[in-house]
Amino acid sequence: MHIKKQRLLTPGPTPLLPRALHAMMASDIHHRTQDFIRLYPTVLADLKEVFGTQGDVLITVSSGTGALEASVSNFFSEGDKVIICSAGKFGERWVDLAKAFRLNGVVLKAEYGDVVTPDRVKRAFAENPDAKGLLFQASETSTGAAHDVQAFGEICKGTDALCIVDAITGLGTMPLDIDGWGLDIIVGGSQKAFMIPPGLAFLSVSAKAWARAETATLPRLYFDLKKEKKMADKGESAWTPNVSHILALAEALKYIKEIGMDKLVENAQLLARATRTAATTLGLELFAPNSPSSSVTAIKAPAGMDSGEIVKGFRNHFGSIIANGQGTMKGQIFRIAHLGYFDFADLFAMVAELELVLHSKGVPVEFGKGVAAVQKIYAEAALKA
Amino acid sequence: MHIKKQRLLTPGPTPLLPRALHAMMASDIHHRTQDFIRLYPTVLADLKEVFGTQGDVLITVSSGTGALEASVSNFFSEGDKVIICSAGKFGERWVDLAKAFRLNGVVLKAEYGDVVTPDRVKRAFAENPDAKGLLFQASETSTGAAHDVQAFGEICKGTDALCIVDAITGLGTMPLDIDGWGLDIIVGGSQKAFMIPPGLAFLSVSAKAWARAETATLPRLYFDLKKEKKMADKGESAWTPNVSHILALAEALKYIKEIGMDKLVENAQLLARATRTAATTLGLELFAPNSPSSSVTAIKAPAGMDSGEIVKGFRNHFGSIIANGQGTMKGQIFRIAHLGYFDFADLFAMVAELELVLHSKGVPVEFGKGVAAVQKIYAEAALKA
Repeated sequence: MHIKKQRLLTPGPTPLLPRALHAMMASDIHHRTQDFIRLYPTVLADLKEVFGTQGDVLITVSSGTGALEASVSNFFSEGDKVIICSAGKFGERWVDLAKAFRLNGVVLKAEYGDVVTPDRVKRAFAENPDAKGLLFQASETSTGAAHDVQAFGEICKGTDALCIVDAITGLGTMPLDIDGWGLDIIVGGSQKAFMIPPGLAFLSVSAKAWARAETATLPRLYFDLKKEKKMADKGESAWTPNVSHILALAEALKYIKEIGMDKLVENAQLLARATRTAATTLGLELFAPNSPSSSVTAIKAPAGMDSGEIVKGFRNHFGSIIANGQGTMKGQIFRIAHLGYFDFADLFAMVAELELVLHSKGVPVEFGKGVAAVQKIYAEAALKA
Repeated sequence: MHIKKQRLLTPGPTPLLPRALHAMMASDIHHRTQDFIRLYPTVLADLKEVFGTQGDVLITVSSGTGALEASVSNFFSEGDKVIICSAGKFGERWVDLAKAFRLNGVVLKAEYGDVVTPDRVKRAFAENPDAKGLLFQASETSTGAAHDVQAFGEICKGTDALCIVDAITGLGTMPLDIDGWGLDIIVGGSQKAFMIPPGLAFLSVSAKAWARAETATLPRLYFDLKKEKKMADKGESAWTPNVSHILALAEALKYIKEIGMDKLVENAQLLARATRTAATTLGLELFAPNSPSSSVTAIKAPAGMDSGEIVKGFRNHFGSIIANGQGTMKGQIFRIAHLGYFDFADLFAMVAELELVLHSKGVPVEFGKGVAAVQKIYAEAALKA
């Protein structure tokens, strides 16, 4: 029996930043005292800096889905028409949300692994000039495909529609010029590129969105963002905050600022590119080859093999946790994440593990071939610099 | 300069159980793997045992207010009539929730420090036989007063109304026979008697409530309890759970089971009684003398003194955090908590600090007199046993 360290290689939860984790031990502060009121505004300010917006950025104590709900319940009224791009399991969540809150959802569906093109969105707006919002994923985590966020933002700009982006795995893995591209709401989550455990979600809110909130009548209290903003301006949260996660987030944001958000994005992009190269070098097929996300790479299992076998192999041989497909994609693909606290050493090891897992399943593999492909990209990108 | 350890003596957050806090460091597990699926059902089962119900107990990633919202959005439809007991700031939150979700709230108001009597509730039901729910606080944290939960439950039993209890500070500080008394929904929070940081809330749901959920049409998705229950039955959570807090909760529940929930309640009750005795021994007046809660004791500041001065004195001299009054009670009262991980040594120190703080403000105090009152109660209750 040899040591197998547990390693999270999944697109959320992601590897935890040790110093952020350790900061959680200082949780014995009260959220209505100066201890917290000194901390919280700096966290909000750092978050805003990392988001890169002049608008507001707020925090909810919830999973990302709670913040997606907030981005619906605060800005729409019953029967409002919204255009939804659905290219995977998370696109389907937008559809569910619109249905639960009785919006009139015009759904643009893409096959799993594919994305909705800006042309289709443009056409949908032409056919539905009364649309009040466009809802989509920046990065569709279930398929590893990325939408053209900038183009979608530009389309919304000239309209009355709010551009609402599930950027839960997009933030920190792709450039997102919130103000420049006209992104009204961007939703993020703590257990993604922010390197801390799940429990918090984030939303940026544009002036256009705030104006809409004035007339939006969907019921909301826990996720009332106007109330949250009012309290945030006083350095507090509307409801009892998740203190331990705020402490962790403070450390993680310091770390991200040290690196630079643009460098964090580049890091993910480079790892994603190297992963794609390693996969194809090993003869594997990418699930979303045309518009790959840098948050996660979805790879098809070799013909005739259940991708769950690969997931199990990673787990049993090495203690590494990678993601299977979701829904009908389960068994077809496996997913390797790049968002947040990931480095090349993680990837060298991961690809070496993949080679051994494939080998153990009888797939002919030349040991080290995928690793070498990653090393080559590292050498070109990093050793040169 | 001498050492001043920070001590939380507030009614939430409460003192943290060290072993629960330490458990949070193991947060690098994935919530859709066996690591979590082995853990979560045991936590739900322990929670159910600690709640003491045969019904379901579910967890939401939110503050307590989120679970209060869930207890409204899952069980009512627009325009439904509900009777609300409002005896403080948290009673007012029920009123806000009913308004936000467009319920027809019949509000029974009590003066701060007082409570709504079962007689008034009975009368309200006689006048509003179409009431679909009764919403109230078991313990009104803002005033330190407790409602007669058993009597309220019995009143609801014969009616179509759901008995919905904000027991966020009631759980672990007063007996709550959920099934016997006909309490349909009980809401709790992690940072209360459960001894862990804020970030999770809990709800018990009766069969009567589940039946109602079938016809309730208020919009909900993030807080959809039917979905949560369906996933809980599979050992998972509907949305990404707060893994670190679930790990902490697992440890805290083990600890509570070791002590026994009834003993935890007795512990709070004894500390509360001793605190009331100490306060009156020191010539101070209780804010809710007639129906005192065992979760928190609210004490009036001496005439002419702002209670904020006492709060500051505790903080500056000793590093102890006690609570001021909320809303219009701010400056009038200070509040000492008993819920969760509190013991007599905490109380000895707290009362000694209180004596010194009063002394520092020019209030004539005989040092040790309040402490002796607590010691006497301890000797009678514990040394004898």
